Amino acid sequence: MEKKALLYEGKAKKIYTTDVENIVWVSYKDSATAFNGEKKAEITGKGELNNEITSLLFQKLTDAGVKNHFIEKLSATEQLVKKVDIIPIEVVIRNSVAGSLSKRLGMDEGTELEKAIVEFYYKDDTLGDPLVTEDHIRVLKLATLEELQTLRTLGLCINNVLKEHFAQCNVRLVDFKVEFGKTSDGEIILADEISPDTCRLWDAETNQKLDKDVFRRDLGNVTDGYNEILKRLGGLSCTK
Amino acid sequence: MEKKALLYEGKAKKIYTTDVENIVWVSYKDSATAFNGEKKAEITGKGELNNEITSLLFQKLTDAGVKNHFIEKLSATEQLVKKVDIIPIEVVIRNSVAGSLSKRLGMDEGTELEKAIVEFYYKDDTLGDPLVTEDHIRVLKLATLEELQTLRTLGLCINNVLKEHFAQCNVRLVDFKVEFGKTSDGEIILADEISPDTCRLWDAETNQKLDKDVFRRDLGNVTDGYNEILKRLGGLSCTK
Repeated sequence: MEKKALLYEGKAKKIYTTDVENIVWVSYKDSATAFNGEKKAEITGKGELNNEITSLLFQKLTDAGVKNHFIEKLSATEQLVKKVDIIPIEVVIRNSVAGSLSKRLGMDEGTELEKAIVEFYYKDDTLGDPLVTEDHIRVLKLATLEELQTLRTLGLCINNVLKEHFAQCNVRLVDFKVEFGKTSDGEIILADEISPDTCRLWDAETNQKLDKDVFRRDLGNVTDGYNEILKRLGGLSCTK
Repeated sequence: MEKKALLYEGKAKKIYTTDVENIVWVSYKDSATAFNGEKKAEITGKGELNNEITSLLFQKLTDAGVKNHFIEKLSATEQLVKKVDIIPIEVVIRNSVAGSLSKRLGMDEGTELEKAIVEFYYKDDTLGDPLVTEDHIRVLKLATLEELQTLRTLGLCINNVLKEHFAQCNVRLVDFKVEFGKTSDGEIILADEISPDTCRLWDAETNQKLDKDVFRRDLGNVTDGYNEILKRLGGLSCTK
């Protein structure tokens, strides 16, 4: 497989075309951003950690029957994935109250939800990725009602797999964000990444944060938590 | 009927008990507030205008078969209504894009929606009345899924009546907010007020704003628009 032209550069990854039409080459960056890009930093080793953690989690999801874009890890910071058209909806699944949900509903962080909830956010940086309802999504023509139902079902299914997997690693999966894409034949599959950048992951005993909130809230060394997650998932710690 | 103790004072109205158990006495105030109370003013005549406009519109809705709390107008600023337990959800129905929807979706104000949309906001001043989804409403136990469906259906039904009524008065009903309450026997009925404080009302020809946005955005004399609405609805202009 050969890496070709840069197709897209996001906040955390670069995507390149390859010599195969429906396959793209992902390169994880060390850049960290928060609050819609207002807070920025370079965190050495973050790209490697997220590439390895995402690869492990997507392989786990493949094993559980969740269709996704992951093909293989190529190097410390690179992986091959199926090319998809990303649906511009961030699907957030929450098992406990944290972050914006805590502010929106006036509930304490850490409160466990009786049942997981699903939220949709419009993936648009200029608008600050706002929360949107099914009616809004219809107005914006981002997805059909049937597709939304698929996103919700897949989100909850992914949650079931990951929540249990993390629990076995003594990690509490508080919430996470996933993105989906459509393949050339119109199938909706899981895409993007699943890492401490996109999940809230707390130590199951102490509730210590092992995710991007350490960066957002200046709580210490960011990669310590990411390394801990990778170690517990059974991967090799890839930063020294 | 006798006015008794003050039961509740809101931003725009005072509610008193009466000598009849299930009837309360509403007194409209001249206070105007916007942006969750950050902007405040006293606008002479606004209480009278909203009381008269609300009375006319609730009577119209009663005639159209929409069950609501309105009993009768008592005086320039007062009316009698059935006592209900207000459901703490603001139901917003939108025919065109304006205000927060314009900001949320990045769409121009005035864009007509193919189909009316319904939004739910959590009625909580300390949280700034945030947009909430059905999942959030379930977490907060504000209403059951069946009750939410009732609120949506009633909201759209009210919209059908009001949109046509305003159109006949050469007024464009851009959007509006309604509140519902439960009677002592558990029935959900329309409550609160429907006035230029709670609707966006534009002149159908010129799109001139005849509602509270004149106050929010400092666009001129607030009561001019309210008087114009009252006149077009066939009421007597009650401020000189």
